[in-house]
Amino acid sequence: MTFYEQLRTAWSTSKSLLCIGIDPDINRLPKALANHPQAYLAFSKSIIDQVAPYACAFKFQFAHFASQGKEEELFLSIQYVKENHPDKLVILDAKRGDIGSTADHYQKECFERYQADAVTLNPYLGDDSVMPFAQRRDKGCIYLCRTSNTGAGDIQDLVLAGNEEQKLYEYIANEVVTRWNQQNAMLVMGATEPEAIKNIRQKFPEIPLLVPGVGTQGGSVNSVLAAGLTTQGDGVLISTSRAVIYASDPAITAKKLNQEINDQRKLKDHQHG
Amino acid sequence: MTFYEQLRTAWSTSKSLLCIGIDPDINRLPKALANHPQAYLAFSKSIIDQVAPYACAFKFQFAHFASQGKEEELFLSIQYVKENHPDKLVILDAKRGDIGSTADHYQKECFERYQADAVTLNPYLGDDSVMPFAQRRDKGCIYLCRTSNTGAGDIQDLVLAGNEEQKLYEYIANEVVTRWNQQNAMLVMGATEPEAIKNIRQKFPEIPLLVPGVGTQGGSVNSVLAAGLTTQGDGVLISTSRAVIYASDPAITAKKLNQEINDQRKLKDHQHG
Repeated sequence: MTFYEQLRTAWSTSKSLLCIGIDPDINRLPKALANHPQAYLAFSKSIIDQVAPYACAFKFQFAHFASQGKEEELFLSIQYVKENHPDKLVILDAKRGDIGSTADHYQKECFERYQADAVTLNPYLGDDSVMPFAQRRDKGCIYLCRTSNTGAGDIQDLVLAGNEEQKLYEYIANEVVTRWNQQNAMLVMGATEPEAIKNIRQKFPEIPLLVPGVGTQGGSVNSVLAAGLTTQGDGVLISTSRAVIYASDPAITAKKLNQEINDQRKLKDHQHG
Repeated sequence: MTFYEQLRTAWSTSKSLLCIGIDPDINRLPKALANHPQAYLAFSKSIIDQVAPYACAFKFQFAHFASQGKEEELFLSIQYVKENHPDKLVILDAKRGDIGSTADHYQKECFERYQADAVTLNPYLGDDSVMPFAQRRDKGCIYLCRTSNTGAGDIQDLVLAGNEEQKLYEYIANEVVTRWNQQNAMLVMGATEPEAIKNIRQKFPEIPLLVPGVGTQGGSVNSVLAAGLTTQGDGVLISTSRAVIYASDPAITAKKLNQEINDQRKLKDHQHG
């Protein structure tokens, strides 16, 4: 099964476009876990079970586990999803990017060691750096395009020479869609910049988007959906982390967010109809 | 001590500009280590001790350890350098790049968990993504600029709009030198593109360069030195991995390479004089 087939299945079986980011922070864990020998795993399991009914995917933030030496708990958290919620996709948010021979080690790390279904990739090193990932048609390659952070525009919005006033992120999107996509490519488009999402959706009506930045970073769900939904009413994976996992009730927060997304999808569907 | 002070000290005390890349590969280890319980650590220690007299730095390739789940051996290898060769710098080649709040976790990973002296960074996410690293003036921030791989030009050589026909990698170099440098910045400039090294050295006479791609990737030491040496006869850290660590005699290979570099430095010094 190509990654696109897996993605479409996850969207339809879960009736959700929501991706929950698992970003455990040693300073923000519940007090009950203070002395737990595998606190990150316990926290991840608890969040996963609470929000699974309202999500189609989980995105694990590599840095949060790696800074604390908790690779084993990352692995076990991913296994937990696969065993207990096998219809959900697992994204490893590790933003890998290296020369070809090294990239091959990174794809092994992501897809064999951690057994993720998809990984985020940084395109700055070009063609040979993405190929070891791209040729895995069964695995998702989620390329950084226009990210959600305050400094995103510093490099990504640079205008390239030529007649079309093309920005760097638009060039990257075009490379991904026309050269690197093996029925497994997505673009990271930050929720904080809905105009850029609209722009990419107009140029590339089908490319699936991973949209972080809803919630703590300030992106609006309605703006993202208005800009990014495909004519089929999907094509976006809306990712939120801190606003859900540190909410007083993660299940209720995720349920409300999923409902808000689905209401908007129906509304847009009626407008199309 | 700023990273620049540490770098200058390492260059002068070791009488070397050579950086040895430690990239263990499970398929290329000596047969004697086949059943060793910590084969990567044993291999790293052996290489480190053999080549230390001819090198000023060691660069550990994160992917090679991570793909095999050998983070602990990576940590112990770094500790081994610090305890047994304390005048050598340790670079973690991990090419990190993420939004500000996540970047802070990555800097903890690199500098606290692994206790590296420097780390390679991908600039694509802009200002806030590099700041958690850059503000550590005691730690080296080695920004990807014009890399050594075959696809490097795909993105890095894109020409930006404006009057100066500036390429993206030149823009990145300027950002690093004028905005991000806290007496701790270096640029990655691949040995496979000496014209780009010459270009950057002309524009920025002082910025230290990490130059990978000598050896297996085909870059020439003489071209790199002719293009990259500063008027002080240093300013480049020449990095080689596979050509030394898998040589039949790593010590002799490193010694010859270091001699070749130092001969060329003296020659250039006489020309200046």
